[in-house]
Amino acid sequence: MKRDKHISEAVIRRLPRYYRHLDNLHYDGITRISSQKLADVLGCTASQIRQDLSCFGEFGQQGYGYNVSRLRAEIASILGMDRGRHCVVVGMGNLGRALVRNFPFSANGFILDAGFDLIEDQEGKNTFGLPVYPAEDLERHLARLKPDVAVLVTPRSVASQMANRLVTAGIKGIWNFTNIELNIDEPEKVILENVHFSDSLLSLSYRITAEELKK
Amino acid sequence: MKRDKHISEAVIRRLPRYYRHLDNLHYDGITRISSQKLADVLGCTASQIRQDLSCFGEFGQQGYGYNVSRLRAEIASILGMDRGRHCVVVGMGNLGRALVRNFPFSANGFILDAGFDLIEDQEGKNTFGLPVYPAEDLERHLARLKPDVAVLVTPRSVASQMANRLVTAGIKGIWNFTNIELNIDEPEKVILENVHFSDSLLSLSYRITAEELKK
Repeated sequence: MKRDKHISEAVIRRLPRYYRHLDNLHYDGITRISSQKLADVLGCTASQIRQDLSCFGEFGQQGYGYNVSRLRAEIASILGMDRGRHCVVVGMGNLGRALVRNFPFSANGFILDAGFDLIEDQEGKNTFGLPVYPAEDLERHLARLKPDVAVLVTPRSVASQMANRLVTAGIKGIWNFTNIELNIDEPEKVILENVHFSDSLLSLSYRITAEELKK
Repeated sequence: MKRDKHISEAVIRRLPRYYRHLDNLHYDGITRISSQKLADVLGCTASQIRQDLSCFGEFGQQGYGYNVSRLRAEIASILGMDRGRHCVVVGMGNLGRALVRNFPFSANGFILDAGFDLIEDQEGKNTFGLPVYPAEDLERHLARLKPDVAVLVTPRSVASQMANRLVTAGIKGIWNFTNIELNIDEPEKVILENVHFSDSLLSLSYRITAEELKK
C-alpha cells in the first residue's frame, strides 16, 4: 500500500471516524455507496474524502463509488488494526475496570492481556476474566507479554512515574486517561495519546450556548 | 461579544484545546505570550489562531501578543463556561462512578447535582458525596433540578430509551459515553456529544504503525 511520507494530524484524526462509519454501514449490510452519500454520512465533502484517501492509494471508482467492505478493510489496515497488537491496562480503579468491562479492544484490533494494580497481593486475581498483577511486578510481566500499548488509568500522583517505567520496559504507545501531561524522560521512545474528556464536554457547552444565543 | 453566524465544526473542536493550553499557561504564571509562541504551544500556526478567534472579535495586539488570563477568560466565555450550567449523571456503574469521582466538572463550568441509577431502592444513597436517585424517579427530580446536560453512562440496552426520557424532561444536551448512536425521537430538541474512545485508540494505533513502517 502506498503511504505518503507526511500525513497531517488532521487526516490521522479523521481516519478512525471514517472507519467507524464504514463499520456501521458494513454491519447494516450496505455493500456499495456513492462518494456523495458517503460524504453525507461522514459530514464532510466528497473531495475531502478523496483527498484524505489519496495519501494511501486509489480507492473508489468513477461512476461506481466505494465498495464498503473493501474500503473498511483498507482503512483498518492503514490504522494498523490487522497487526494483532497487544495491550495492558495499568490501574484497576473505576475507570480501568469500566474499560476492561466495556471497551471493545478486540473490535479495535487489540488483544488485552493483563491488568496491573497498585494494591499488593493481587497475584492471580481476575477482573472480568482478565488476570491482574501487582504493579511492583510490572517489568517481569511486560518482559513476558511484550505488549505494544499500555492504557494508563492510574491516579495522577503516580502517572508520570508509571509511564516512565512502561517506556523503559519497551512499551511503544501510551493511551493516557489520567488527564495530566505526562513527564517522560525519553519522549522520543514512546507515542502518547491523551484522552481529554473536557474537550468534548466544552464543545457541547459551546453548542448549547450558541443555540441559546440564537433565540 | 461578536459571534459570527456560522462557526465551523473544526473551530468548535479547536476552542476547548486552546482553552486547555491557556489554562495551563495561566496556572504556570505566564501572563503574556507572543502569537508565535502560543502557536508553538498549540501546535498550529499563528494565522490559524488569529483566524479562529476572529469569528468572535479582536484578541491580542500587534507587537504585544496575547494577554494569557484575558484570552483564557474570553475563550471560557465563548465556550459558555461562565453560565453556571447544571448537570446530572445517568448510570452509576464503573464509568459513571469514575466520572463522578475524577472528572473536574466545576473546572469546566458545570455543577454536578445528582446521579441516577437503575438499581431500585437507592433513594438518598450517596456516591462520593453525590446524591443518587433511582432512575424511575428521573422526571420528578429533573423537574426540580432543571439540569442543562445529562451525562449518559447507562448500559447500551437502555441508552436510547433513557435518552428520550431525558429529552422529554427538557434536557438541552446529552454527553453520550455509551458508544452507540442514540435513537432520538425528537432530534431537534437536543444537542448530542458522543465520546468515542475508539477514535483515540485507533489514531494511536495508526501512529505506532507509521513509526514501524519508517524503520
